Amino acid sequence: MKKDIYKLCETLWPINRSITGEGVRKTLEIIKKIIPNLVIKEIPSGTKCFDWTVPYEWSIKDAYIIDPDGKKIVDFKENNLHVLGYSTPVNKLINLSKLEKHLYSLPDLPNAIPYVTSYYKKRWGFCIQDNVRKKLKKGLYRVLIDSSHKQGSLTYGELIIPGEIKSEIFLSTYVCHPSMANNELSGPAVTTYLAKWINTIKTRYSYRIIFIPETIGSICYLQKNLLQMQQNIIAGFNITCVGDDNCFSFVPSRIEDSIADRAAKHVLRFLHPDYVSYSFLDRGSDERQYCSPGVDLPVVSIMRSKYREYIEYHTSLDNLDFISPEGLFGSFEAIQKAILCLENNCFPVAKQLCEPFLSKRNLRSSIGGEKTLRKDIALMMDLLIYSDGNRDLISIAEKINCPLWELIDVLEKLKKENLIELHEHKD
Amino acid sequence: MKKDIYKLCETLWPINRSITGEGVRKTLEIIKKIIPNLVIKEIPSGTKCFDWTVPYEWSIKDAYIIDPDGKKIVDFKENNLHVLGYSTPVNKLINLSKLEKHLYSLPDLPNAIPYVTSYYKKRWGFCIQDNVRKKLKKGLYRVLIDSSHKQGSLTYGELIIPGEIKSEIFLSTYVCHPSMANNELSGPAVTTYLAKWINTIKTRYSYRIIFIPETIGSICYLQKNLLQMQQNIIAGFNITCVGDDNCFSFVPSRIEDSIADRAAKHVLRFLHPDYVSYSFLDRGSDERQYCSPGVDLPVVSIMRSKYREYIEYHTSLDNLDFISPEGLFGSFEAIQKAILCLENNCFPVAKQLCEPFLSKRNLRSSIGGEKTLRKDIALMMDLLIYSDGNRDLISIAEKINCPLWELIDVLEKLKKENLIELHEHKD
Amino acid sequence: MKKDIYKLCETLWPINRSITGEGVRKTLEIIKKIIPNLVIKEIPSGTKCFDWTVPYEWSIKDAYIIDPDGKKIVDFKENNLHVLGYSTPVNKLINLSKLEKHLYSLPDLPNAIPYVTSYYKKRWGFCIQDNVRKKLKKGLYRVLIDSSHKQGSLTYGELIIPGEIKSEIFLSTYVCHPSMANNELSGPAVTTYLAKWINTIKTRYSYRIIFIPETIGSICYLQKNLLQMQQNIIAGFNITCVGDDNCFSFVPSRIEDSIADRAAKHVLRFLHPDYVSYSFLDRGSDERQYCSPGVDLPVVSIMRSKYREYIEYHTSLDNLDFISPEGLFGSFEAIQKAILCLENNCFPVAKQLCEPFLSKRNLRSSIGGEKTLRKDIALMMDLLIYSDGNRDLISIAEKINCPLWELIDVLEKLKKENLIELHEHKD
Repeated sequence: MKKDIYKLCETLWPINRSITGEGVRKTLEIIKKIIPNLVIKEIPSGTKCFDWTVPYEWSIKDAYIIDPDGKKIVDFKENNLHVLGYSTPVNKLINLSKLEKHLYSLPDLPNAIPYVTSYYKKRWGFCIQDNVRKKLKKGLYRVLIDSSHKQGSLTYGELIIPGEIKSEIFLSTYVCHPSMANNELSGPAVTTYLAKWINTIKTRYSYRIIFIPETIGSICYLQKNLLQMQQNIIAGFNITCVGDDNCFSFVPSRIEDSIADRAAKHVLRFLHPDYVSYSFLDRGSDERQYCSPGVDLPVVSIMRSKYREYIEYHTSLDNLDFISPEGLFGSFEAIQKAILCLENNCFPVAKQLCEPFLSKRNLRSSIGGEKTLRKDIALMMDLLIYSDGNRDLISIAEKINCPLWELIDVLEKLKKENLIELHEHKD
Repeated sequence: MKKDIYKLCETLWPINRSITGEGVRKTLEIIKKIIPNLVIKEIPSGTKCFDWTVPYEWSIKDAYIIDPDGKKIVDFKENNLHVLGYSTPVNKLINLSKLEKHLYSLPDLPNAIPYVTSYYKKRWGFCIQDNVRKKLKKGLYRVLIDSSHKQGSLTYGELIIPGEIKSEIFLSTYVCHPSMANNELSGPAVTTYLAKWINTIKTRYSYRIIFIPETIGSICYLQKNLLQMQQNIIAGFNITCVGDDNCFSFVPSRIEDSIADRAAKHVLRFLHPDYVSYSFLDRGSDERQYCSPGVDLPVVSIMRSKYREYIEYHTSLDNLDFISPEGLFGSFEAIQKAILCLENNCFPVAKQLCEPFLSKRNLRSSIGGEKTLRKDIALMMDLLIYSDGNRDLISIAEKINCPLWELIDVLEKLKKENLIELHEHKD
Repeated sequence: MKKDIYKLCETLWPINRSITGEGVRKTLEIIKKIIPNLVIKEIPSGTKCFDWTVPYEWSIKDAYIIDPDGKKIVDFKENNLHVLGYSTPVNKLINLSKLEKHLYSLPDLPNAIPYVTSYYKKRWGFCIQDNVRKKLKKGLYRVLIDSSHKQGSLTYGELIIPGEIKSEIFLSTYVCHPSMANNELSGPAVTTYLAKWINTIKTRYSYRIIFIPETIGSICYLQKNLLQMQQNIIAGFNITCVGDDNCFSFVPSRIEDSIADRAAKHVLRFLHPDYVSYSFLDRGSDERQYCSPGVDLPVVSIMRSKYREYIEYHTSLDNLDFISPEGLFGSFEAIQKAILCLENNCFPVAKQLCEPFLSKRNLRSSIGGEKTLRKDIALMMDLLIYSDGNRDLISIAEKINCPLWELIDVLEKLKKENLIELHEHKD
């Protein structure tokens, strides 16, 4: 599995993605091979979505700059970050000072190609290493961008997996970034394998899993599905920046104490206690839409190196070396555990008044007077005594300092002995 | 009084107690001499109590081990801890390796006899010093336990002291431990003298004070009295481990913020600010029953060295030297103060709008402009200004940083001047 | 303005004020020149106010002590603090030991004349430097106090400035202190200029601004206006000790979390983060009345060096050198900002679901992929995303770590773009 997630990133790596266009379609087709129930959908250019409009579809075949010596110094085919996203077509000779106005580079990271876009204002431009830029000499440059903007559509993937009940857990990731790894091939790759796993298990909740372009995609999706989402989604995860080996990060939902927040923090507390807890003020991905006022979905982010917080962010340095099979799999596991917490959450209620007589059931030693209680017995007793019907399992697990997933077997044993009842989620 | 509590421990010391049997009866008879209104009750063996059954009554006359040299190396008459509690009878010659399976000792405390029981599984055994055990040589040992298990009853003491109202304060302690001092002769001794004191005063609350065997006793008592207890008890104290001189300890009720918790913490904050505050997870005595889900009584523990937290716990080292008259009396005072806090708690309401004119009542100097207010006047003013009918006296005392018992006279003065009304407890 | 506030202190300095009498009237007449809509009112001696009675009006023409050598060693005309406030008349020769009983001095501050009063008990006395007192030799002293207590009235100033709505912001300060500067000419001086400023602006709230004698004045005023005040006042400021350059201080209302508390703490957090936060237990001015139980007004104090907390307090050392134009103006600004917070407070509600398309409105760069967001844009986005109708602007400003007054223009911009609605205060 570890290798599979990373391998998917490698497969998707060379595709030139943007918020619309063939790159997204190819990406989704590859993902669909792993999760065949993924449905690929299209929203026509020009569709109004709240305050926004779906833009024309962008296609690009080639782009380069040839210097006065005839040398191709910038080539889209070498790295698709070289072209300003959504560039208008151009094909002309211009002098250096005019060219300069169309160049984007990072003086602080002189060897990196920056990732820059201009989706909603007509521009053309090239993104290049600042080191290359500094060496440009005067003269006439041939600039070519063989692109087009046409009526087309915005493409996204949607996977609805029905569970026992209509209430949903929501996973959202984005497929609009060209060749970058942590932000963002890690998101679609981890989400694909989460979806594959969910496909194989029997779940209580239904699942809504989407692969969309960032911002315009989540806005369009909300426009089409808002009411249903508000009625059904009990917890959501925006899956982004989940590829590298560094410390985990957490961004809460705007309401901060939803069950999604509680489950995610519970997992990170036990699996990665050194995680960095950000404020919702540090948000920067589709939770900006999901958590906006009036939408109010409980969507959180469990991440590794968070967007904006690592130097390689939004540059060519965020490449396949920046992420790792272990990094991806660690994120997979953390989100999987959060889902398991939600799936297994319930309101346990002790069925016996007073402590049950455990030793007659062989659940406890019949020798009394021990100076300390065996750990597994103490845990069972702690679970029982807090099973008052007012606390859900996440709350009990937090209280008794034990990861929820280690309580599942204990609950099972107590249920078998008829010592506990599991009440329905209140949500 | 200090000496009396300790003396009672000395008197009760030699008696061999267990969860049933003559030891408990003798203990209660001695206590009844100090609090004659104590009623001694019996519950027959075989009675079902929730998930439990009252066991047969256990009697023991003698027990010893004679070594291959004919020397009596272990003798119940020297220390009643030597016999595994509830041992079945035995009288035979066995070799060392078979004997070993019936021996209990503590390698970490080689000079201590451990306290071990097997109430609900038939076993026989001896508890001995590990130092003695190590020196045992091969050969045949004579083991004798002259005990019996017969239909009989579980004995407990109950004292109901009616107050002005039906609401009750509940004191519970246990009388099932053989010769150990802090855990547990301190509990019955301190409780006896608390009961004696309550017998002499006029109280607002009624009192329910019980001397029971631990666990099975509290479970039986709850079975018989649950509804009444839930209706009447507003605060309870489980009195155990109150004998030594060390730092105070506190274990909250499961709900953590009951009025019992608030009163106990208020007392400890002012009398023993260095007290150790445990979690309810650290529980280990009858609050395990009283606070169990569905029972939900607000029962807390004010202790000295807490069970499981001192090295001598549940061994022969927890003897009369481990406790002291001062230690016992300090605990008596702390619980007494907590009771006084509950008895005097009320919702004071200032009767004057604005500050009253104190100097005309000679409650304040008639000289104005002082650079600081006299402490007693500041206290009176602070008490008055927080007497808004929403805060009870415990809450006011906490807010104004003054022990509640130091406010009682001030309240009296203000009542006399018609500046304050004391409203009924809301409970 | 800075100079004006200080100048007013200088003008009011020499006047001999007390809780009644000509000093208060002269003071209010001078203030009325700056805020002509001030109404000067009188409450007759003998009027019952809750637990209190308005005392006789006190007048004093002269007072001195002549020593055995015929030297005038204490002279009221040099410093009006020399006379115990409300002294009864006296004119006689007495020996030193009898005189001593009528002298007030401060051994710890031997060069300071203390401020002492005896409003409600008939006494006469002189307040002198301890250094002077120590040098007094035996012999006969001539003591003269040419004072009188007659049926008259208690004088106060009231200024009601109507706003758009009936709800009121309340400012209260006191004018009963003789020649002292921080406590208390700073309060009336700063309040006068706040009133002058409010007179010039269009306000949402109505304003109730009073200049009263401390304690008896606020009690009388409450007696006359309680119901109206309780119905209308949403926030109040007791303005005292606002003259010096030292660190700001804050005393909360008794309820601690009123909107007055929130606005004041918000201002101090951003303007003077080093401010000292006192407890309501440290109260000592008219909030003692305004916040008393049953009155329950949300009145807070923003101060510089707080009464009782500086060595010069209530002595002749609290003089015009102790305060400064900058100190006074700093306090003016802090209270002004708190008023602006209240005036501009509202419940903003975002009108768009999801983030609005800002770049089409030129509110954001059309270039995407930036590694960090421009600060002003981040601020606008933060304001928008927390505009869910549940948080008021103070709460949003606290959440997004930005002083409320810096959000006013941003709100205006968003309103113009129809991206936000400002809902009515809920109060």
